[in-house]
Amino acid sequence: MNKKEPTLDSAYIYRGKVVTLRKDTVLLPNGRKGEREIVEHPGAVAVVPVTAEGKIIFVKQYRKPLEQETIEIPAGKLDRGEGPEKCALRELQEEIGFLGKLEYKFSYFTTPGFSDEIMHLFIARDLEQSYLACDEDEFIEKLEVSPSEALHMIMKGEIKDAKTIIGIFTFLQEGHRQ
Amino acid sequence: MNKKEPTLDSAYIYRGKVVTLRKDTVLLPNGRKGEREIVEHPGAVAVVPVTAEGKIIFVKQYRKPLEQETIEIPAGKLDRGEGPEKCALRELQEEIGFLGKLEYKFSYFTTPGFSDEIMHLFIARDLEQSYLACDEDEFIEKLEVSPSEALHMIMKGEIKDAKTIIGIFTFLQEGHRQ
Repeated sequence: MNKKEPTLDSAYIYRGKVVTLRKDTVLLPNGRKGEREIVEHPGAVAVVPVTAEGKIIFVKQYRKPLEQETIEIPAGKLDRGEGPEKCALRELQEEIGFLGKLEYKFSYFTTPGFSDEIMHLFIARDLEQSYLACDEDEFIEKLEVSPSEALHMIMKGEIKDAKTIIGIFTFLQEGHRQ
Repeated sequence: MNKKEPTLDSAYIYRGKVVTLRKDTVLLPNGRKGEREIVEHPGAVAVVPVTAEGKIIFVKQYRKPLEQETIEIPAGKLDRGEGPEKCALRELQEEIGFLGKLEYKFSYFTTPGFSDEIMHLFIARDLEQSYLACDEDEFIEKLEVSPSEALHMIMKGEIKDAKTIIGIFTFLQEGHRQ
């Protein structure tokens, strides 16, 4: 069975700053027509910043879609033409005011059911305070947590952001538990 | 500093089958106005189905937003008024044709930057073939993989779906490695 879904028609519904929404009419494998609502996204990076003591630096951020503050690892969207590594260093600088040495881990899709957003995951070590100030528009608070405490925070529902959960598990997987 | 972002104005741009898009104008902590594009989502469940041999059952699915097939754990959106547990049992039945005993793990937000989608994660054990047929519209292929092989598949980029990565790590975290 051909598993592809050829596009019969495609129309843009909205082109925004973060979200662009498109509706495709596709041919399903059973010969019927289907509709696919697709959120186009420029792609993003997430970085697990690890201190010399082996703690992870998180940021607290107000997330309007959730109407609550969340605990997350530094992350952000790729600027046009920007590579993932450059973006990761920029976000590290803007969100926590550090420079660091990046290790690329893997890339994944955040929500394949309705979006093409790809997330590139890095671990950052050898952190050094940057002389540039943090981005003033980001309104961010920092906290440092041990990996084992971070794991408890996932299980207790205190850390509830997908990229942060993946970042913590990936770091723990390397055997850096403490 | 007040970290909330009070809504000054809110307008729906699109109400679709899967995706509803809203644009909020908010008051930022610095007193300026900002815009927030928000994808409203009904919420979803993801289930790690574990066989008697300790293998995880995955499904292969064509994902139009990515124009590729992905390897995922069974998952799906909540129907209106449907609880997460009922939804998890339904998706298990529709996608892999099994009934099972659910263990709730935790809930998380898939993409807090632009969506309110919440995902409820379960592990399913004591699987039993269901007498009802799978959902014909889902065009799904199954595969069984050991947790350690699943971990390799994440690191090699063969498994690249966020909920599936979180499901595998959560199952491994329980100490069911083999």
